[in-house]
Amino acid sequence: MSSLALREAVLEANLALPRHGLVTFTWGNVSGVDRERGLVAIKPSGVAYEHMTARDIVVLSLNGEKVEGELRPSSDTPTHLALYRRYPEIGGIVHTHSTHATAWAQAHKPIPAFGTTHADYFHGEIPCTRPLSNAEVESEYELNTGSVIIETLGERSPLAMPGILVSEHAPFAWGKSAEDAVHNAVVLEEVARMALLTLSLNPRQGPIADYLLDKHYLRKHGAKAYYGQGRG
Amino acid sequence: MSSLALREAVLEANLALPRHGLVTFTWGNVSGVDRERGLVAIKPSGVAYEHMTARDIVVLSLNGEKVEGELRPSSDTPTHLALYRRYPEIGGIVHTHSTHATAWAQAHKPIPAFGTTHADYFHGEIPCTRPLSNAEVESEYELNTGSVIIETLGERSPLAMPGILVSEHAPFAWGKSAEDAVHNAVVLEEVARMALLTLSLNPRQGPIADYLLDKHYLRKHGAKAYYGQGRG
Amino acid sequence: MSSLALREAVLEANLALPRHGLVTFTWGNVSGVDRERGLVAIKPSGVAYEHMTARDIVVLSLNGEKVEGELRPSSDTPTHLALYRRYPEIGGIVHTHSTHATAWAQAHKPIPAFGTTHADYFHGEIPCTRPLSNAEVESEYELNTGSVIIETLGERSPLAMPGILVSEHAPFAWGKSAEDAVHNAVVLEEVARMALLTLSLNPRQGPIADYLLDKHYLRKHGAKAYYGQGRG
Amino acid sequence: MSSLALREAVLEANLALPRHGLVTFTWGNVSGVDRERGLVAIKPSGVAYEHMTARDIVVLSLNGEKVEGELRPSSDTPTHLALYRRYPEIGGIVHTHSTHATAWAQAHKPIPAFGTTHADYFHGEIPCTRPLSNAEVESEYELNTGSVIIETLGERSPLAMPGILVSEHAPFAWGKSAEDAVHNAVVLEEVARMALLTLSLNPRQGPIADYLLDKHYLRKHGAKAYYGQGRG
Repeated sequence: MSSLALREAVLEANLALPRHGLVTFTWGNVSGVDRERGLVAIKPSGVAYEHMTARDIVVLSLNGEKVEGELRPSSDTPTHLALYRRYPEIGGIVHTHSTHATAWAQAHKPIPAFGTTHADYFHGEIPCTRPLSNAEVESEYELNTGSVIIETLGERSPLAMPGILVSEHAPFAWGKSAEDAVHNAVVLEEVARMALLTLSLNPRQGPIADYLLDKHYLRKHGAKAYYGQGRG
Repeated sequence: MSSLALREAVLEANLALPRHGLVTFTWGNVSGVDRERGLVAIKPSGVAYEHMTARDIVVLSLNGEKVEGELRPSSDTPTHLALYRRYPEIGGIVHTHSTHATAWAQAHKPIPAFGTTHADYFHGEIPCTRPLSNAEVESEYELNTGSVIIETLGERSPLAMPGILVSEHAPFAWGKSAEDAVHNAVVLEEVARMALLTLSLNPRQGPIADYLLDKHYLRKHGAKAYYGQGRG
Repeated sequence: MSSLALREAVLEANLALPRHGLVTFTWGNVSGVDRERGLVAIKPSGVAYEHMTARDIVVLSLNGEKVEGELRPSSDTPTHLALYRRYPEIGGIVHTHSTHATAWAQAHKPIPAFGTTHADYFHGEIPCTRPLSNAEVESEYELNTGSVIIETLGERSPLAMPGILVSEHAPFAWGKSAEDAVHNAVVLEEVARMALLTLSLNPRQGPIADYLLDKHYLRKHGAKAYYGQGRG
Repeated sequence: MSSLALREAVLEANLALPRHGLVTFTWGNVSGVDRERGLVAIKPSGVAYEHMTARDIVVLSLNGEKVEGELRPSSDTPTHLALYRRYPEIGGIVHTHSTHATAWAQAHKPIPAFGTTHADYFHGEIPCTRPLSNAEVESEYELNTGSVIIETLGERSPLAMPGILVSEHAPFAWGKSAEDAVHNAVVLEEVARMALLTLSLNPRQGPIADYLLDKHYLRKHGAKAYYGQGRG
């Protein structure tokens, strides 16, 4: 992939955020990675979606040195880079302040797997990080946000748990590509909304059984998947 | 009806789902049946609505043998076929993960008849199935979903109760045709939303009296209906 | 006003309902009255908004005899006529099943005046009728709906309380014209939504003081109004 | 800035209100000030957004004498003028009845800082004024609304707390310009919505730590800001 193609894919993924109703103003950013060349493309900081072009997308090395682009990259760049360095299987990352997922993050609560909509994408409860300490916020805040995501995911596979809630802040989601990451961010918001409404109907609702969780997740993912047209 | 006309009607009904805000991505499917020829047309699995054409719609026998179409049918096809075999009076079926109806299904709760909006379409409480057992999920899951819907409807007429909540999953709706089934799926979502808001105002709200339920249902349906322009 | 002008005004007011998000399918109707000629124009029953023309609007006398039009009038016509006969000051009536106002009607609760948005249009709590008895539903149901609205309004001026909740059913609103009635129906839905959210923040919230209610209502209405460009 | 340019900026800011879903009908107004010439431009009272032109915008002195324009200014003008006189650093003011912010005002509750979305714009809890007394409502109501906002803000910098809830009424927001004030009004509504949903998940949720509040606020504002393209 040329770096222009990467920037265009990342631009397109960023423009999909307002189209899906996930962002207000410039609150959100998408990045994508070219693993062969070790390059990450990411949204510039504080630029309105309606004026953004592929030239505005910033290209960096995995360690954060700028390779292409005039503008300053998203202030959340160190979080994205930490995740790319830790998880070689992910190809795109999205950060939004989508309304319902943010409400869960603000309530410091993981999202239980209440149904098959959730299980089709997230293989278990969507975790919520612990709050960062004063020291973690004071110095290298954005890098530490990446670290606490990694700490919280623990042994989980990032493709079987393609999103997380950062406590007191908002969600991050990821996927095989920038486009796939946006897809998962849309699902995370909708799952968060359904789960909030479920609790309003039954505040003591528990999660679905593991056998149903596995069934739905594996119907769409893995070697025995039978959903879709066999693209996997 | 030619099989092309059936496929076009089913395509049109599928395209109505995103227009009515009932689906995210490909989460939903509509089928229709030609009773004379014993043919069912249904949405292909995992194909985006914006790219779907009548050629993509799959045509099957009532026992699930493929008659026309290149693509794999919706993974929910065995559920649809079970309902068509059991209920000769229905002509179309819809499955969605519409937000509020799914919240009720995730809370394992039937939707009480709180008002005339409900009674105009659903002649009583909209039932919620029991959860499926491990064995029912492991083997022939989608067929067993059809069976538990039939078990739950029991003696009810499917046209007087044109929808149901599948516990831990999401709603199914049906009607005289694919178009009519979509109409009922829209109503089910709106009724689910109103009922959830009603409970937020009064958590102990009970259903309306049977005489009001009967009045509204029969004002629109049956021999003495006087709503509309006498098309029935 | 010619009967054609009346029908066109009533058509336009009906078409405004879906534009304001107040109706699903054909769930709603608007009428208008020509007081000089004693004629009421009303939406036909069960006709889709997108196909409606001025010719479809039905014109009736205040006693319900059809004067013009091929179609059957809305099944709610007797409710509208009862209100026109009782309240000479109103010129238009709207019935919808708008989501939040209907939730209040289903919870059998009046909407308290929680703020100035409410007070700008409704001079006090928006009342909710008692449920109709079995006898009232069995015979002349729609006429009895009008009667219970009149019973509930009691001594209130209909222009100072331009809407009501019919218990177990949905809202009616009215105004000086069909257009004004639609305006009030939009306000009623928004006020119902704000009030529901207010109670979710404080379940014991009480109404505003009478002096603030009077101030806002009289700022927009009556002899000393100083809102707007002095059209009143 | 010519007074025409001021009127055009204020018109544009007013038209942004319905585009952002902040207003129903004419419920809202934006003003802007030219500090050099001591002129305030404001929306006329009760004029529909779709018909408004720059000529309709009214220009006044800071003491309220009309300088340009045929129409009567917004009935909330004395509130705007009081704020401009007290806070020389603000350049634009917005008043709306946006749904969720109004629900908080109606519940008489300040909005706690539950997360970074809030902290990016509002440096602490968004305050709610006390109710006005009977005397304050009876005489110079709109001026007294300005006074109670000033009383409630107290020692806070208006640019670090660019909005407030007027108890029993609705929000006001402000900023460096009319456009910036609209931006803050949009954020206030979204923050109000997220906070309401957060409380529905955890009714006892407390605010974020001061160190996180400071970090986010100062990341976007002040001498050490590093968000955006360094425009500040």
